[in-house]
Amino acid sequence: MTPMINTLYLPELREMLANNDKQGLKEFCEALHHPYQTAEFMEGLTAEECWAILRCADMSDRVDIFLYLPWEKQVEALEKSDPKEAGEFIAFLPPDDRVDLLNELPDEVAEKIMQMTPEEDRHDIQRLSQYDENTVGAIMTTAVAKITENLTPREAVEAAKKQAEEMETIYYLYVVDEEDHLRGLLTFRELICSLGKPDIKVSDIMERNLITIKPTEDREEASMLVAKYDVLALPVVDDEYHLIGIITHDDVMDVVMDEAEEDAQIAAGVSPLEGDYLDSPIHTIVWKRGMWLVILFIGAFLTAFTISHYDEQVEISGLDWLFIFLPMIVSAGGNSGNQSATLIITSLTNGSVHPSDVMRVFRREILIGLSLGCILGLVGIGYSLGFSWMNSEPPWYEVCVILPSTLILVVLCGSIIGAMLPLFFSKVGLDPALMSNPFVAGIIDVMGIVIYLHVALFFLPLLH
Amino acid sequence: MTPMINTLYLPELREMLANNDKQGLKEFCEALHHPYQTAEFMEGLTAEECWAILRCADMSDRVDIFLYLPWEKQVEALEKSDPKEAGEFIAFLPPDDRVDLLNELPDEVAEKIMQMTPEEDRHDIQRLSQYDENTVGAIMTTAVAKITENLTPREAVEAAKKQAEEMETIYYLYVVDEEDHLRGLLTFRELICSLGKPDIKVSDIMERNLITIKPTEDREEASMLVAKYDVLALPVVDDEYHLIGIITHDDVMDVVMDEAEEDAQIAAGVSPLEGDYLDSPIHTIVWKRGMWLVILFIGAFLTAFTISHYDEQVEISGLDWLFIFLPMIVSAGGNSGNQSATLIITSLTNGSVHPSDVMRVFRREILIGLSLGCILGLVGIGYSLGFSWMNSEPPWYEVCVILPSTLILVVLCGSIIGAMLPLFFSKVGLDPALMSNPFVAGIIDVMGIVIYLHVALFFLPLLH
Repeated sequence: MTPMINTLYLPELREMLANNDKQGLKEFCEALHHPYQTAEFMEGLTAEECWAILRCADMSDRVDIFLYLPWEKQVEALEKSDPKEAGEFIAFLPPDDRVDLLNELPDEVAEKIMQMTPEEDRHDIQRLSQYDENTVGAIMTTAVAKITENLTPREAVEAAKKQAEEMETIYYLYVVDEEDHLRGLLTFRELICSLGKPDIKVSDIMERNLITIKPTEDREEASMLVAKYDVLALPVVDDEYHLIGIITHDDVMDVVMDEAEEDAQIAAGVSPLEGDYLDSPIHTIVWKRGMWLVILFIGAFLTAFTISHYDEQVEISGLDWLFIFLPMIVSAGGNSGNQSATLIITSLTNGSVHPSDVMRVFRREILIGLSLGCILGLVGIGYSLGFSWMNSEPPWYEVCVILPSTLILVVLCGSIIGAMLPLFFSKVGLDPALMSNPFVAGIIDVMGIVIYLHVALFFLPLLH
Repeated sequence: MTPMINTLYLPELREMLANNDKQGLKEFCEALHHPYQTAEFMEGLTAEECWAILRCADMSDRVDIFLYLPWEKQVEALEKSDPKEAGEFIAFLPPDDRVDLLNELPDEVAEKIMQMTPEEDRHDIQRLSQYDENTVGAIMTTAVAKITENLTPREAVEAAKKQAEEMETIYYLYVVDEEDHLRGLLTFRELICSLGKPDIKVSDIMERNLITIKPTEDREEASMLVAKYDVLALPVVDDEYHLIGIITHDDVMDVVMDEAEEDAQIAAGVSPLEGDYLDSPIHTIVWKRGMWLVILFIGAFLTAFTISHYDEQVEISGLDWLFIFLPMIVSAGGNSGNQSATLIITSLTNGSVHPSDVMRVFRREILIGLSLGCILGLVGIGYSLGFSWMNSEPPWYEVCVILPSTLILVVLCGSIIGAMLPLFFSKVGLDPALMSNPFVAGIIDVMGIVIYLHVALFFLPLLH
């Protein structure tokens, strides 16, 4: 079932707000099954109105619904709320979310709210905020269900029950010693199966050999591991193997979706948007696109420079007809380069190609590029004959030699450059998605033109 | 911890195979913590060798490790194994995986194996195989933990315990009536919290208002819902609300990663590869790329056609210099169109833009396109002045009027077309990612050339 139209309750909500009908608003917050749906019904309201409604709800409803409001609205609501109330409120937010929120607020507002936050939570926030945006530390949560290894299964269930309200997941119970060193993992499934067996301790049934991750590693690394091992959560440990947090499957899902969207936008030369397209201010989109468009445009000027360099020679040689096919040649090279670049970028992302595979990729792209070049060359012969049939000049053999030869070379070079650039970027530690496609486009355009004109000038004396 | 070098055990494994050391091979299958790691150590072996090793393991280890072997190896192992053994084996595989496997096998092999499969499993396979590849039905599993609503919490725990071995997850217990109608959901967390409360039944604590999905819906729809609602699993129901399966978080993760890779490849004009780049035969890649390259090349011929159409007029008018900037103009239009198309495609994918938003998008793209066009137009004036400074002909004002005006129009039209095409494709029910970017490229190239030459021919009489 998809959610219903979300303007349905707006008039009622506004009326209750106007009448300060706290009981009615509280009931609204409790009425729907999933907090996501409640948040959707509040879509048409301002951040202040949302906050005024949420203030009427119980703390647990308030937290749940708040977290499903659009990100910008969460930030604005906190920014405009009473710092004391906000300080108390964020103590109940999941550790990873509140750090992100506070980072987004103006410094002086965040500080005021922090002063009103209970000490323990404040320390937790300070600890988490030290991690960079795209690291594991920035998406992990410190709300981990922990048990000790000397418990019986029944005691472990009791311990889990006590933590059930606050923790992000209780289906993985992490076994730690007194100093919080990670000793093992007991899944709830395992725990349930051991219930009733006599004389068993957690240490007898826990898994000791765990997949872990460091807080400073890339968040994409964490999502790879979760996807690979099909786990619900991944424990985050520091250098001394202290358990400092977990990454849960839903955080990872958000990372994967975010990264896919970002990669697509980067590949098209758009700096990733933070909000939704329709909600982003026009000037933000113009800035995020314009930046790249200008960079690419400056690169494209090289094509004009190249052509003007050969222009006179081409005209003298009577090769004016070359210009007719110029965009076609350039686009054939660009398309094949883009194909190679994308195949290599997606393979680097899913780990099936490593920068060290450069020679294998190179050999494959030579074969692939040559085959594709010959295919397009054949189509090109067709074009040439058609063109010569309709035009008396230039001689047909001139077109039929120059066009297909150019196509083979351009597609071959396009494929090779397209495959090599992402490998090179990855090798030197840059995100291959970040620069490769727009770069590939620019380099291959110039290359295509140079090849085309050189092939023509090379064959001309032989053909006349 | 990342997995170790995976050739480590190869010599030992081969030796044990040669000596038919069943006990040793069984121990190898049990030694490592996660079946994924065991599968990785078997990477260098053939499908037959892998199968020979797995035959020595217990059935549960055999299943777990088998599922982490590369897809091609799973298929080959089954194909070459004894049908009787394979038939017994697949009875233990998760319902969704075995259907995919059987679909991949040659028909006569699949049939032989099916004959050896226990009847109940055979029916289940037949039921699941009726769903199309990209539907919810094709990725759902029928191994669902079910309970009835009149149980007490303690009885529910017992019921879950009994199902713990076979079911994909027991953390969500689905409540059904005698005819398997879905009545509600009890999370294990809720269940644990209610343990010990007297006189409580499952019906008192279960959640009744559930997010569900139909087996015929798109698997991407399922991943959207799981991501939105942060759930562990999504129940799949038929038209009569019978519970027929669930989609679990790890299946969804695979879908999201698959789709992201596919979308990237499609956007670059490559039909999605099924295997890894380095493992795919050259001719497969040539085919999957060549197909599109030829289509795009045929489209690109339109540019040649367009130019040759205007060619004479341009030469007569002394506008030969236009060709110098042609690729630059075409690439500016292409880049801005690609940006718009990608923004709209990613927004359609994440649900933040709907085909009905066409007018809002149109208005936004007019503003964005105009702004971007003016920015490039300004850079274009710089180019024009530089070019005129270096060349005595054509007169500087000619270049300075024609180039910037063209850029504004080309970027504007590129942005609008780029945004509108995916919306149109989505409206008529095609995957917007499937055709939009390559299509956008072709259309915008031709458009750019037409605009450029028309602008030039329009201004020429006014400037002379």
